[in-house]
Amino acid sequence: MQEIKSQGYSVFVGDVLEQLQTFLENHTTQYSKFFILVDENTHKHCLPQVLHDVHHLVDAEIIEIESGEVNKCIDVVSQVWMTLSDAEADRKALFVNLGGGVIGDMGGFIASTYKRGIDFLNIPTTLLSQVDASVGGKLGIDLNGLKNQIGVFNFPQGVFVHTTFLNSLPFSQIRSGWAEVLKHALIRDKQQWNNLKSADLHKVDWNKEIAWSVGIKNEIVLEDPREKGVRKLLNFGHTIGHAIETLSIEHIGLKDLLHGEAIGAGMIAELYLSNMLAGLSKAEMDEVVEALVKLYEPVALREEFFDSYVQLMGNDKKNEGGLINFTLLKSIGEGVINYTADKAQIIEALKYFNSVVKNA
Amino acid sequence: MQEIKSQGYSVFVGDVLEQLQTFLENHTTQYSKFFILVDENTHKHCLPQVLHDVHHLVDAEIIEIESGEVNKCIDVVSQVWMTLSDAEADRKALFVNLGGGVIGDMGGFIASTYKRGIDFLNIPTTLLSQVDASVGGKLGIDLNGLKNQIGVFNFPQGVFVHTTFLNSLPFSQIRSGWAEVLKHALIRDKQQWNNLKSADLHKVDWNKEIAWSVGIKNEIVLEDPREKGVRKLLNFGHTIGHAIETLSIEHIGLKDLLHGEAIGAGMIAELYLSNMLAGLSKAEMDEVVEALVKLYEPVALREEFFDSYVQLMGNDKKNEGGLINFTLLKSIGEGVINYTADKAQIIEALKYFNSVVKNA
Repeated sequence: MQEIKSQGYSVFVGDVLEQLQTFLENHTTQYSKFFILVDENTHKHCLPQVLHDVHHLVDAEIIEIESGEVNKCIDVVSQVWMTLSDAEADRKALFVNLGGGVIGDMGGFIASTYKRGIDFLNIPTTLLSQVDASVGGKLGIDLNGLKNQIGVFNFPQGVFVHTTFLNSLPFSQIRSGWAEVLKHALIRDKQQWNNLKSADLHKVDWNKEIAWSVGIKNEIVLEDPREKGVRKLLNFGHTIGHAIETLSIEHIGLKDLLHGEAIGAGMIAELYLSNMLAGLSKAEMDEVVEALVKLYEPVALREEFFDSYVQLMGNDKKNEGGLINFTLLKSIGEGVINYTADKAQIIEALKYFNSVVKNA
Repeated sequence: MQEIKSQGYSVFVGDVLEQLQTFLENHTTQYSKFFILVDENTHKHCLPQVLHDVHHLVDAEIIEIESGEVNKCIDVVSQVWMTLSDAEADRKALFVNLGGGVIGDMGGFIASTYKRGIDFLNIPTTLLSQVDASVGGKLGIDLNGLKNQIGVFNFPQGVFVHTTFLNSLPFSQIRSGWAEVLKHALIRDKQQWNNLKSADLHKVDWNKEIAWSVGIKNEIVLEDPREKGVRKLLNFGHTIGHAIETLSIEHIGLKDLLHGEAIGAGMIAELYLSNMLAGLSKAEMDEVVEALVKLYEPVALREEFFDSYVQLMGNDKKNEGGLINFTLLKSIGEGVINYTADKAQIIEALKYFNSVVKNA
C-alpha cells in the first residue's frame, strides 16, 4: 500500500480497506453516525466488500442515487440533504462517498454544505475518479448543461483507492480513466509517456501507475491550490474536451461519451494547437495523436456544431474575460499554460481532428 | 467612519458609500462584471442611493428576489445561479448583496458556490444584518423547515454598513436587530448592558453602537472561527429562540415573528435556565427579564406545542450527539458555554416564560 500526502489528508492506494478500518477505529469517538452514498452499481459491486472488511461501517445508513452524469444536479443534492436532515444527521456525522466521479464530486459537495460542512471520506471506484478526483478538492455539480458550474473547494478526511474495484469495470471505463494518466505523463514526464504510450490496459500494474499518477497531480495541486497558475497544466485536453463532453450531455450529435474519451478527443485537437502556437514539433504531435487515435477510436465531430463547441469553450469556468484560454504542450512531458486561441484557430483544430479520426 | 478588521476583510461602519466607491476603484481591473442582489424593498429604498453614490456599479446587473425568510431556499438559489450562468458570469464577476439577513446569507452562499466561488461584498441594510451577519462567515439557506441547515463558511471582500439605511426601517425591525446588540452586552460587557438596557431606540447613536456591537462579535469570532468553543457564546438565547422562530416559519401558533423577537423570547427562557443551572442570581435574572419583556412584549407559547419546541432544539445544528446544549449567563456580562438541559428542565423554562409574558 502506498500513501500520498495531500492537502491535510492522505490518499491510500492498494489494498486499503484494512487501512480504512484502522482510520475509523482511530476516530471512533469523533463521529455520531455514518452515511454511505452509492449508486446502483457500487451498491451491487463494491458495497458488500466494504461492509465485509470494514466492521465500523456495518450500521451505516446507505443512501443510493441513480448513476450517471445527468444526475449530478441540484435536485439530487437536495434529495440527499433531505435524507440527512430526516435522519437527524448532526455535525459529527461522517459521509462516505463510494463510487466514481459523480458520487465523489457531488457527495463531497453535499457533505461540504450540509450544516456548513461535515467530514467525508472518498472511496473512488473508477479509474478516472481514482487518478483524477482523489486530490485537488474540486467538488460540485452541473447546472444549465454546463459541467461543474456549481461547487466549492474542500477536502475529505481521507481517500481510499481500493484498486481491486477496477476488476468490476468494463474496458471502456478503464480506457476513459487512462486518458488522465496519459495527460499527467504528457504535461510532466516524458519518460513515463514512453513507458505508457503502448501499454496493454489489461496488464497494467494498477497500484504502481495509480500511485504515480495521483502523485503527479498532487505535486501540481500543492504548488497551486487555487488554480492561479501552474495548476492550469491539468487542463490540457480539457478546454475542447469539456465542450465535446457537454454537447454529449445535451445529446447533440454524440451520445454516451465517457469523460476520458472526450478528453482523449480534446487532447488530439489541442495537440494541433500546441504545434501551431506552443512550439510542439510535428513529429511529437504525430506520435501522440497516433497513440490517442488508436486507443480512443474517436469519431468525427459534425461541422454544423463547430460554432456551438467554440461558444461552449467561452463558457468554460477556467476562462476569464472573454478570451479562450488553453493549456498546451511545448514538448512531450512539458505542458505550458495561458495560451489563447481565437475562433478561427480553434475551428482549424477541430477540422484537423476530423481529418485524423474516423467518420461518424 | 469606523473600520473593524475581520477575517481577511474589513467592516466599514458609518457613511460608507464613498468607501465602497474607493474599494471598487482600487480593484477595477480585477472584476469582469458586477451583479447586485436585491429584494423588492432594497430595490426601492436602498439601490437608488447606492447607484447614485457608487458610479462603478451603474452598469451592474440587478437580480431581484422576493423578500422573506420563506425564500431563503434552494429553489431561489438555483434561480439566481441560472441567472448568473445565463449572463455568462465568469470567475472574475463580483456579487454584491444589498439587503438584510436573507440576502446576505443566501447571496453569500450563491457567490461562494457559483463556479466554486466568486468574490462578493455585503451591504447589510437592516440593523440585524448589520450587527449580526457582517462578521462570522456563516452563509446558507433553510431546508426542511430548519434554519441554516445548508451552507458554508466563507468571507466577503468587504462589508459596508451604511447606517443611514436604518431610517427606512419600521420600528419592529430596529427592535429585532437590537436583540443581538443586547445579547452582545449580556455575554461580554456588563457596563454596556447598563448603558443600553433602557435606551430609547429612536435616539440611538447608530454609528457608535453598531461599531461596538460588530467589534464584540468580531472579537469572539476571531478567537474561535469554527465554533469549537468560545464562539458558542453567541448562541445565548438562540437554542430556544430558533425553535420559536422555526415554528413561526411553519405557521404553527405564531406568525410573522421577526428573528430578534424570537431571540428576545429565547433569552427570557434561557435566563431562567441560567438561574437554574449556571449560577445567575435571581436579581440579575429579574432585571434582564423585565427589560426584555418590556421591550419585546412577547406572547405566551401554546403548551400543546412544548414537545415540538424541545424536539426542534434537538435538531439544532449546534447540537451534537443527542444532548441539548445551551449557552447561558453566569452573571450579566459573563456568558458560559456547554451547559446541557434535559427536556423537563426546558419545559420548566418554557412555563416560566409563559408566566412572565402576556397571554396570546
